[in-house]
Amino acid sequence: MCRWMAYSGPPIYLDTVLFEAKNSLVEQSLNARWSHVVTNGDGFGIGWHGERGKPGLYRDVLPAWNDENLREVSEQVKSGLFFAHVRAATGESATARQNCHPFRHGGWMFMHNGAIADFPLLRRELDLAIPEALYRHKKGTTDSETIFYLLIANGLADDPAAAYAATVRQVEDTMSAHSVAGPFRFAAIATDGSRMIAIRYSSDDQSPTLFYGLGIGGKDQSVMIMSEPSDEESGHWAEVPESSIVFAGEGALHIENFAHG
Amino acid sequence: MCRWMAYSGPPIYLDTVLFEAKNSLVEQSLNARWSHVVTNGDGFGIGWHGERGKPGLYRDVLPAWNDENLREVSEQVKSGLFFAHVRAATGESATARQNCHPFRHGGWMFMHNGAIADFPLLRRELDLAIPEALYRHKKGTTDSETIFYLLIANGLADDPAAAYAATVRQVEDTMSAHSVAGPFRFAAIATDGSRMIAIRYSSDDQSPTLFYGLGIGGKDQSVMIMSEPSDEESGHWAEVPESSIVFAGEGALHIENFAHG
Amino acid sequence: MCRWMAYSGPPIYLDTVLFEAKNSLVEQSLNARWSHVVTNGDGFGIGWHGERGKPGLYRDVLPAWNDENLREVSEQVKSGLFFAHVRAATGESATARQNCHPFRHGGWMFMHNGAIADFPLLRRELDLAIPEALYRHKKGTTDSETIFYLLIANGLADDPAAAYAATVRQVEDTMSAHSVAGPFRFAAIATDGSRMIAIRYSSDDQSPTLFYGLGIGGKDQSVMIMSEPSDEESGHWAEVPESSIVFAGEGALHIENFAHG
Amino acid sequence: MCRWMAYSGPPIYLDTVLFEAKNSLVEQSLNARWSHVVTNGDGFGIGWHGERGKPGLYRDVLPAWNDENLREVSEQVKSGLFFAHVRAATGESATARQNCHPFRHGGWMFMHNGAIADFPLLRRELDLAIPEALYRHKKGTTDSETIFYLLIANGLADDPAAAYAATVRQVEDTMSAHSVAGPFRFAAIATDGSRMIAIRYSSDDQSPTLFYGLGIGGKDQSVMIMSEPSDEESGHWAEVPESSIVFAGEGALHIENFAHG
Repeated sequence: MCRWMAYSGPPIYLDTVLFEAKNSLVEQSLNARWSHVVTNGDGFGIGWHGERGKPGLYRDVLPAWNDENLREVSEQVKSGLFFAHVRAATGESATARQNCHPFRHGGWMFMHNGAIADFPLLRRELDLAIPEALYRHKKGTTDSETIFYLLIANGLADDPAAAYAATVRQVEDTMSAHSVAGPFRFAAIATDGSRMIAIRYSSDDQSPTLFYGLGIGGKDQSVMIMSEPSDEESGHWAEVPESSIVFAGEGALHIENFAHG
Repeated sequence: MCRWMAYSGPPIYLDTVLFEAKNSLVEQSLNARWSHVVTNGDGFGIGWHGERGKPGLYRDVLPAWNDENLREVSEQVKSGLFFAHVRAATGESATARQNCHPFRHGGWMFMHNGAIADFPLLRRELDLAIPEALYRHKKGTTDSETIFYLLIANGLADDPAAAYAATVRQVEDTMSAHSVAGPFRFAAIATDGSRMIAIRYSSDDQSPTLFYGLGIGGKDQSVMIMSEPSDEESGHWAEVPESSIVFAGEGALHIENFAHG
Repeated sequence: MCRWMAYSGPPIYLDTVLFEAKNSLVEQSLNARWSHVVTNGDGFGIGWHGERGKPGLYRDVLPAWNDENLREVSEQVKSGLFFAHVRAATGESATARQNCHPFRHGGWMFMHNGAIADFPLLRRELDLAIPEALYRHKKGTTDSETIFYLLIANGLADDPAAAYAATVRQVEDTMSAHSVAGPFRFAAIATDGSRMIAIRYSSDDQSPTLFYGLGIGGKDQSVMIMSEPSDEESGHWAEVPESSIVFAGEGALHIENFAHG
Repeated sequence: MCRWMAYSGPPIYLDTVLFEAKNSLVEQSLNARWSHVVTNGDGFGIGWHGERGKPGLYRDVLPAWNDENLREVSEQVKSGLFFAHVRAATGESATARQNCHPFRHGGWMFMHNGAIADFPLLRRELDLAIPEALYRHKKGTTDSETIFYLLIANGLADDPAAAYAATVRQVEDTMSAHSVAGPFRFAAIATDGSRMIAIRYSSDDQSPTLFYGLGIGGKDQSVMIMSEPSDEESGHWAEVPESSIVFAGEGALHIENFAHG
């Protein structure tokens, strides 16, 4: 399993959350507390919105705790909306920058913790469901990147909740058609630079962990969504319920039941 | 453009050809003489048959001249049949180990110098032509890897010449269907560990360079096929003609006209 | 030989100079025009002052033209004073992040194009001349990093011109003592975040090239010092004379003869 | 703490011990059982004697479990004497290939698990103790590499036990002189390609773990020395006592008390 975190609020230096917190994401990459996979050392990535239209994206295959460039960039870059992810590779996908999260396309970024069971068996059919205009931009071979392009094809920009629903149905129908019983685990988040839309869902109701926090670190108007709380003692964290979609941005957060029919 | 070399003959240490020759492959990666792209510094790879059934494969994104590990492995490994490739990335494919040649599947290895024009436009359709059982093994996003899987699907193991012909037709039909005029350049080679089958072809008769040599370096029974001769003074090299297929192995070499209908 | 550039002036995005100019530093890394070593693909580094006291430092062993992370960071980071360097490794020093420029210590950064002849022979004696309090921070094995620590020990923070003079004397005395005739080539620059002090000197008056430009790219109050002009048509560039020290900052530039006795 | 293994005996494929054993070295890099530092993901290295005089050396900064090239090389390379090491970086030394073990000089290779306390404080004095002819070859900045060059300077090739004794005294005298109380932990091994000489020692009698095994995996005449047994159920392992030197080779092993006066 992977670990990720998302922040929206007043611009802060990335290292505040990536390195400094007690259970920071980088600390989690070495000693994840809430997961049976203790080490997430198969690559990491950060994506952040600055003052240019397009978000910056920095991904590498080194373990997060080991990359001095990640620390340097985090110390110097301030952002009011950013994503970070550490990867524990599952299945077939090679450890390569192109297979690290977040993924970016158009104005969107996306990260995922979880997996589609037996993805190698389903990969061609799901990739085929991606329209040509998007398929040509796919740079890696993970189930997560495929899901991202399906979300975009399914109208992520227009109605994110509907896009998540359609994509989950698409994935589960394909699993069915190939008699894949094993679960589809989906703790993920997308952003267009102003709002973030996260989902916590799995086909067997055993989703990866997901928490949200408001006003963490004394920052009013800040919202964080993370696989594990970065600072448990603070008491500002709550678990995102199973089968939920979370809309976050501008200091507020709104949770809905995830209906996917 | 890339540069590659293939050797078949009495086992020799890989560094003999990779590093020591006057115009060795690594020298070419820095100063390619026969190409308008002077530097091939976007990754390299070697694949070699030893005593285990499956060939070894070592690929990295560092420039070949810069990787001490490549030199160390080359100094210690002896092989009677090996491939080596240095890459100058063209088009969309990221520099990543999975996008470096040679590619390996089942008992086969494959390398390519050249490109399918406008591949991003054609990529989905060509990938779709790969049967599911092979598609799931594709690890990168290059036109070369797609061509490799099409060759396998088209019967490379049974009749390599026919597989090359069918694959070229498939690629050119797809180019036509999408009104892509630009050329398909194809100087490539495949091996199953005993014979090597190379092709020099392009849709506009301007194929990348390809040479063959027999008995190079005093090794009777040795055959080399290379983008550029590794040692021009020796006089043992001849150019592979346009539109040819070359069968090589066991010290002999046989050239046929490439008929693809 | 390496290539470097330094900028001081109104904050600009790093990619303006690193990537966009006609003869940008990254373009130079592939096709250096003014040097007999055409390719500078043995690593690169950037150091930039932002809003935190300490400058950020990003260095990697990939060729500059090949690193998407460098491009991403350059597109998002703005700075009013930054350094960038592409390396063509000479001599014994391995290609490693720790051997890439710029080097950073305390509030200073330093880059160098050139070399101390026969450095392996002189290395221990010159390293020994570094006081213990500084020696413990040395992370690599290049002559450039050793020179940097000698400059600091020789009072770079108090009187840069005197520090350059003392260091050059120290290096040349050591060369003499070991009967090393070959040249000491020294086109280098240091900065404390507000001013930059460059030197163009060699023991045989054949220094590596060095140019300066004022108001480049329409930015009043900007000063650039570079191994090669990034934009030759603009006519704003002049060569730094042999045996000179250049003081630059706040839109102005002052050149002195380099007296090292 | 790091983990290492050494093998001497009939040539075997490296992957037999690196990957296949129940508690293989690569497994240990992910889940070291006998150490409080669970993950050894800061680089790895292998050194092996083949048929060329000089041993091959392959080191990289990727975690061992993550490097497909390591697996490929291990599957193809056979050796009758090889070293392998996975690193958990302690202290100041950067993660770089040059700081990974084993180190190699002349006909010798060396690996170390442990550390010299407060090495940054002692580094210059200990480096200074290395004669110039050896100092110039030092490529990194670890205490381990410095110890290796001191061993060579102290006559490792002539009398390994005496060299270990002299080096330990040298290190401890330097610690004393700088009032460093903290321990010197030293579980290390050197080889000249025919015999291996290991040491298990620490100034506070709390050495890192070290085990030896004879005839492991059914290979008569084989000797293995490892930080942790690779296969605990086999019952062929015994602990190397504190303050011991182990001489191994040609299927036999001889343990002496380590006297360092």
